[in-house]
Amino acid sequence: MSMDDLKTSRRGFLMSSAAAGGALLAAGTARAEGADPLITEVQDWASGLGDGVDATPYGMPIEFEADVVRRNVPWLTADPISSINFTPIHALDGTITPQGCAFERHHSGAIELRKEDYRLMINGLVDKPLVFAYADLERFPRENHVYFCECAANTGMEWAGAQLNGAQFTHGMIHNMEYSGVPLRTLLEEAGMDAAGDLSDKWVYVEGADASSNGRSIPMEKALDDVLVAFKANGEALRKEHGYPVRLVVPGWEGNMWVKWLRRIEITDHAVESREETSKYTDTLADGTSRKWTWVMDAKSVVTSPSPQSPITHGPGPLVITGLAWSGHGAITGVDVSIDGGANWQKARLAKPGAKMALTRFYLDIDWDGSEMLLQSRAHDETGYVQPTKAQLREVRGLNSVYHNNCIQTWHVNTDGSAENVEVS
Amino acid sequence: MSMDDLKTSRRGFLMSSAAAGGALLAAGTARAEGADPLITEVQDWASGLGDGVDATPYGMPIEFEADVVRRNVPWLTADPISSINFTPIHALDGTITPQGCAFERHHSGAIELRKEDYRLMINGLVDKPLVFAYADLERFPRENHVYFCECAANTGMEWAGAQLNGAQFTHGMIHNMEYSGVPLRTLLEEAGMDAAGDLSDKWVYVEGADASSNGRSIPMEKALDDVLVAFKANGEALRKEHGYPVRLVVPGWEGNMWVKWLRRIEITDHAVESREETSKYTDTLADGTSRKWTWVMDAKSVVTSPSPQSPITHGPGPLVITGLAWSGHGAITGVDVSIDGGANWQKARLAKPGAKMALTRFYLDIDWDGSEMLLQSRAHDETGYVQPTKAQLREVRGLNSVYHNNCIQTWHVNTDGSAENVEVS
Repeated sequence: MSMDDLKTSRRGFLMSSAAAGGALLAAGTARAEGADPLITEVQDWASGLGDGVDATPYGMPIEFEADVVRRNVPWLTADPISSINFTPIHALDGTITPQGCAFERHHSGAIELRKEDYRLMINGLVDKPLVFAYADLERFPRENHVYFCECAANTGMEWAGAQLNGAQFTHGMIHNMEYSGVPLRTLLEEAGMDAAGDLSDKWVYVEGADASSNGRSIPMEKALDDVLVAFKANGEALRKEHGYPVRLVVPGWEGNMWVKWLRRIEITDHAVESREETSKYTDTLADGTSRKWTWVMDAKSVVTSPSPQSPITHGPGPLVITGLAWSGHGAITGVDVSIDGGANWQKARLAKPGAKMALTRFYLDIDWDGSEMLLQSRAHDETGYVQPTKAQLREVRGLNSVYHNNCIQTWHVNTDGSAENVEVS
Repeated sequence: MSMDDLKTSRRGFLMSSAAAGGALLAAGTARAEGADPLITEVQDWASGLGDGVDATPYGMPIEFEADVVRRNVPWLTADPISSINFTPIHALDGTITPQGCAFERHHSGAIELRKEDYRLMINGLVDKPLVFAYADLERFPRENHVYFCECAANTGMEWAGAQLNGAQFTHGMIHNMEYSGVPLRTLLEEAGMDAAGDLSDKWVYVEGADASSNGRSIPMEKALDDVLVAFKANGEALRKEHGYPVRLVVPGWEGNMWVKWLRRIEITDHAVESREETSKYTDTLADGTSRKWTWVMDAKSVVTSPSPQSPITHGPGPLVITGLAWSGHGAITGVDVSIDGGANWQKARLAKPGAKMALTRFYLDIDWDGSEMLLQSRAHDETGYVQPTKAQLREVRGLNSVYHNNCIQTWHVNTDGSAENVEVS
C-alpha cells in the first residue's frame, strides 16, 4: 500500500463519515470540545524521523506523564528523611507497580549500600551463626512471587474524617511487585535451627542496615512459611529506596516488617518488643489500651478512577469504574461497587482471579446518566471477610488509631465529573 | 533493643563464629578473596541519614546497576533510527520486564505523540467508520494480560553460527509486560463489522503513526481472538519508545505486528502484502522460496545465567542455573536443562506454572563440580512441541533465514566460571 493509496482511502473515510451523519467519535461524542478536530484540522502524516534506539539506554516515562509520580505530603511528618510518599494509584491500571513510582517509607532515609559491602548475619539460637555475602545469597534456590506491600498507616489520616483529597494520598502507601529471592526458611535451615529446639514459640528479629535499623520481631511460623529474602523486584535489582541490594518480603503483613537493606536475622525465644512494635505500629483503642501484633493487613479496596485526581472528563454514557482490592489473609474473591453510597451494590468484574496477597484489579463498566454518585467499593477475601464501613470500624477501634484503617472509601462524584473525598454515615 | 544491646550481641556473634571454626560465609566459602572481610575489616554501624522521600519523585536504578541497560549493536543496521536494542535478560530475574530496559525496535525512530493529538481510525468494510480520541478508548471495558513480545529477528544473527557473545544479544529482543487495554474485538464491533459479511476470510490492516507506518495484515480470526489495543504496560502509560499512547498487542505473534503509535485499522477482504510482510518478515529457505505468514513465535528458551555476561563468580558447589522459556502457541509445560551439550537432560523447576504467551522463569539448582559445562535448555509447550536443535532447524530451513530462529542455545562454561557462545553438532 503506497502513501497515495493511504491518502485516497483517508479521503474516502472522511466522506463516508460525513455521510454517516458525523458519527466520527465513538463513545466520545460528548467530548468537551464538541467538534471533531479531524474535520477542521487534518493531521499531517508523520514524515519526520523519531529517536533511535541509542537515545535512552534506560528509559523514563514520556514528558507528558510527568505528573504520574510519587508525591509527599509535607505536613505529615517532621522531615522527609523519616517520611512517606505515595504511589500514584489514581493514574495506574493493571496490578504491577513500576519500582520508579512505588511508594517509599523511610525511618532514617534511603541508604546506599554496595553489593560488595553487603552482609547478612544470621545469629541467635542456631547451630552455626552465619554471615552471607550478597554473592552467597545468589547460590540458594530462588522463588518468584507477586505480593502487595502496604504500609500499616495507609489510609491512616482518614480515621478522623475525610482529609486527603485523592486515591494517591488516601490509599497510595501500597505497591505490588514480582519479587525474586530466597525463602527465609532456606537460610534459617542453613544456619541450623535445630539448636533452637521446639520452634513453635520462637521468633526471628530482623534488622536493616540503615541508622534506624527498624527492628521487628516475626513469629517463627510466619518466618518459615512464605517470607522471602528478596533481591529483585519486577525482574531487576531492587531500587535504592526499596532496600538495595536485599530486603525482606513478608507477604500480607504490614510494610514496616518488610525490612530494607536487610542486615541481621536473630533467632530468639521471645519477641524483642522494639520501638517499632511498641510505641509505633500498635493501635490505641478508645479505652486507651492498645492492640498489638496487628501484623496482617485486612481486606481492603479503593476505586482509583474516577476519583479526585482522576475526574470524569466526558459527559453521560459509557464509563469505566476501576480500582484495586487486596487482602493479607489470602486471595480476593470478589469486589462490590456502589454508586449510591452503599445503598445498592453491583458485582465488579475482576481482571484476573484473585491471587494470594497480591493486588487484584476490578472494573465496573456502567452507562453513567450524568448525575452525582457516591462511589464505593467493598472487598471480599477467601476467608469470607467483608471490608467494613468506616462506622463499623470506628465502633470497634474508636478514633485514636493511626494504623490498619481498611474501611470502605467514598468519593463524591459531581455532575461535571469532578470528585472529592467524603464520608457517608 | 538499644544500640548497646546490638553491639553486645554482635560481639557475641563474632566470638561464637570464631568458636565455630570460621564458618562465617555459608555457601560462599569458596569466594574469590578467600578471607572473610568481617574478621579483618569490621563494618561500621550505619549512623548517617540517607535520602528523604522527596529525593526522586520518579526513581531510577541505583548507580551500581548502571550496566543493566538496553544495548545496541552498532554494526547490525545502518542507523539507530531503524535499528534494535536488546533487553539485559542476563541480569534480570523473575518474568516481568521493566519498561525502562525492555528492548526497542524502530523502523523510523520513536515518535512523540500527545494524547490530545492521538486519533485511531477504523475504516474499510465496516458499517460506520470511526475515529477514536484517546479519551474515547478509556471508556470501553478493559482487560489486563501479561504477554511476551519477541522480535521475529531475535536470535537471527545465530543462524549462520555463534556470533553474539551474551544472552542479551542472542535472545534479548524480548520483553514481558502486563498490558491494560481494550480488546480489538470490542472496537471492531463498535464500528459494525456486519458490513464485512462472512468474517472468516477477512483481515485487518494495522498501521502506526510513525513515518514508516509499519503496516501489517492480521487475519480476522486472530484479531477477534486475543488482540488488545493497549495503553498501559506494567501499570503505567506506555513509554514513548513502546508506542505511547497506544500500541497493538498481538499475543504470541512476532513483535513487528505489535504496531506502536497505532493510528489506523482497516477491515479488508485481502491481506495487503505490505513491505513489512513481503520483502521483510518472511523466511527464505535453502531453495530460494520463502515461508510467508510465519506469525507465531515457536517455543524457545535460553539460559540467562550463567552466560557470557553473567559468569560464575565462585568456585565449585551450589550453583543456580536459570533462564526463560516461552511459546507463542500457549503455555510452557516444561523445560529441560543439559550441562553436557545435550547428552543428558534434567527437568528444570518452573517458578510458576506456565501461562499462555508469557515468559516462564526456570531454575535448576546444581552442585557444580567445577568442570567445564556445555549449558543448554529445551522448552516444551502445551501443544507437545519440543524446542529443536540448531541442526534440526537448519535441516528444514537452510541457512538463509533471518527470522524465527528458536533453536537450542549453547553456552560453554569454563572452569574459571567464564562462558562463551558456542555451537555443538
